Amino acid sequence: MNKEINIGLFGFGVVGSGLYNVLNLSEASHIKISKIVVKNPKKKRSIPSENFFFDKQTILLDLKINTVVELINDPEEAYQIVKTALKYGKHVVSANKKMIAEHLNELIALANNNNVSFLYEAAVAGSIPIIRNLEEYYNNDTLSSILGIVNGTTNFILTQANEGISYKKAMQIAQEKGFAETDPTSDVDGFDSKYKLSILIKHAFGIHVNSNSIFNNGIRNIKPRDIQYANEKGYRIKLFARAEKIDNQIIGFVAPQFVKQDNFCYQVNNEFNAITVEAAFSDKQLFIGKGAGSFPTASAVLSDISALVYDYKYEYRKSAVEGKVNFTSNFYVRVYLGSENRIDLSRIDLIQEDESFFSDEYSFKIGWIVFSELEKFDFNEWKEISLIILPNEVELAEIQYFTLQNTTELILE
Amino acid sequence: MNKEINIGLFGFGVVGSGLYNVLNLSEASHIKISKIVVKNPKKKRSIPSENFFFDKQTILLDLKINTVVELINDPEEAYQIVKTALKYGKHVVSANKKMIAEHLNELIALANNNNVSFLYEAAVAGSIPIIRNLEEYYNNDTLSSILGIVNGTTNFILTQANEGISYKKAMQIAQEKGFAETDPTSDVDGFDSKYKLSILIKHAFGIHVNSNSIFNNGIRNIKPRDIQYANEKGYRIKLFARAEKIDNQIIGFVAPQFVKQDNFCYQVNNEFNAITVEAAFSDKQLFIGKGAGSFPTASAVLSDISALVYDYKYEYRKSAVEGKVNFTSNFYVRVYLGSENRIDLSRIDLIQEDESFFSDEYSFKIGWIVFSELEKFDFNEWKEISLIILPNEVELAEIQYFTLQNTTELILE
Repeated sequence: MNKEINIGLFGFGVVGSGLYNVLNLSEASHIKISKIVVKNPKKKRSIPSENFFFDKQTILLDLKINTVVELINDPEEAYQIVKTALKYGKHVVSANKKMIAEHLNELIALANNNNVSFLYEAAVAGSIPIIRNLEEYYNNDTLSSILGIVNGTTNFILTQANEGISYKKAMQIAQEKGFAETDPTSDVDGFDSKYKLSILIKHAFGIHVNSNSIFNNGIRNIKPRDIQYANEKGYRIKLFARAEKIDNQIIGFVAPQFVKQDNFCYQVNNEFNAITVEAAFSDKQLFIGKGAGSFPTASAVLSDISALVYDYKYEYRKSAVEGKVNFTSNFYVRVYLGSENRIDLSRIDLIQEDESFFSDEYSFKIGWIVFSELEKFDFNEWKEISLIILPNEVELAEIQYFTLQNTTELILE
Repeated sequence: MNKEINIGLFGFGVVGSGLYNVLNLSEASHIKISKIVVKNPKKKRSIPSENFFFDKQTILLDLKINTVVELINDPEEAYQIVKTALKYGKHVVSANKKMIAEHLNELIALANNNNVSFLYEAAVAGSIPIIRNLEEYYNNDTLSSILGIVNGTTNFILTQANEGISYKKAMQIAQEKGFAETDPTSDVDGFDSKYKLSILIKHAFGIHVNSNSIFNNGIRNIKPRDIQYANEKGYRIKLFARAEKIDNQIIGFVAPQFVKQDNFCYQVNNEFNAITVEAAFSDKQLFIGKGAGSFPTASAVLSDISALVYDYKYEYRKSAVEGKVNFTSNFYVRVYLGSENRIDLSRIDLIQEDESFFSDEYSFKIGWIVFSELEKFDFNEWKEISLIILPNEVELAEIQYFTLQNTTELILE
């Protein structure tokens, strides 16, 4: 029960240095950082330079180090480090969502074969213990959906935008506050959210869907007129990563969505993250917390490290379904499509159009579309079009999906 | 990994029958209810009468039953059953908060001595996995506070009351909807909340504080004028169970509190429960879900049962502090005291009075008081007085406490 955790740390950025500080402040005497490897020998850091090494083998070949904590940005380099560390029989704690989303099954197999743990709570929604809960607590239950605001940057920008501040100005504030990167593409176009969604799907539903197969539409093209529409209807716009299980099929995507006031996520603003878990018997559960930042993320990493002391592993009990359930785009969704030019709108066919509005300045239409049709467009690159998912009109604040087989009358021929 | 769970079930009320249904609907083939013991042979039930036994020994002496699930109302009888089951080497899953709050350390010792698990997630906040999270996830972190709406009945009544419906009418609606018992004393006077708080304190801070030592003031005396005051200030009133760790002292109590709009709990209405956990590094986390009802509670019970398959136990790692930290009433709190008669108010001395209002119909005063002074009154029985805790004026939506040693200038002499 009092196993020593001897850490080799890769990366000393916001999270790495946060972890260093958290460990120094906490009373975990059996956990220590033994070596730190960073990329740039010249960068000025908050602790003396003799603490740093620059060759990854310094950690990987050190037999006394039993745990690698990987907190670097480069997903390819992270992949090499994590793979090697697992092969060498070291436990790994990582926060690199892109790397994990793209190589999850391979890394799980490696960890199993070498009888070590591979933990990554910090990769999804920072300090919210969502992976642990999906693994441990929602294991018995028939999970039906997960819906999350898992990117703090976009939630911060949308909070500003919902209050009438322009996207450009909101982005500037986010960058000044350190919530947005210099190149914010991964956040604002929904890539970051879908890496996290890929990981959530594995722990919620048992299958690994590579993030390349998941549709992501971000918030870059949302226009003041869309916000105006939202305000008129009493909605706020949130960027959701969501997945549902319908019979033996899993659907999942990242897209902005109108949210009504009676949805808990309506109140989740600024850099906060939130995840709603819905299960057959436990009803809806909501988790809210800070999704990013030095200490919240470092705290999640430390939680994983502490769990290693007790030999904790993800068991992936739901993975027995791998091969039996499949990921599908074969479902309907109700969308709002807006543009300054009505010709743009005519390029997307809805199978059922519920509403449309046309004017010289702005036009929009609302209706149902098969998701696989929607996926044919790259909306992030199609700047003229705003695509926003609508809340269901019947069940409050929820999208209504229905799989094709249940709605034969609506099947496209 | 595929241990058979052979259950002896005590009680077939809302939760017991819910569990029975949930188990029938789930795919957990290695979990089965072998025998059910109920009290009343004559009561009509949803399944055939040959399923029921009436002597508790039928389960307790059955060597094939390895797990007792205790879901009866009577705390004293529950205590006898749980004690005996643990002694006989059976795992126990219970939802009886009063019984657990009053005998926790004894039952933990019994479980340890007999090398069995004693789990009770359903006892606190129904389907919200708060005990598991406090045990597993917030183990490494320096937890500083927990604040919860842990009683759905009072939250439902307060939601109505905040909207201007009288307490009496709100209680009637709650009873019609099945949210309130015929005798609602335990709920509305805050007893139920403090049993749960006692359990939360054990898992959050490591010490067992018997619920008899915890102050509880419920919502029975809240008057329309208090609601009016709340509305004027933009507050809602919520019944909070809360505990904080300040240095090596734990404080905790149950009382109504004014909540501002920017507090997440402001939006937690009707029968929903919510728990905020604050920790040094992970910042604030919020969990929201249904706290009561047949399926949410049964789902929590089933989660415990499923965890038994993997030999799960609460480790009580924080209990090492038992004896080193103490529970204290030696702190200040800012209160609102209202009454239709100003003479009532004069019976309670504030050490610092910030505001007061007097009229023929209604009077109130606001200010600081030492908590141990407040505890001398039984506010549940003192119908004339409304006692409501105020949110801090500096840090939003939080009470400001300060321990006596930190505020020498305010010490009473």
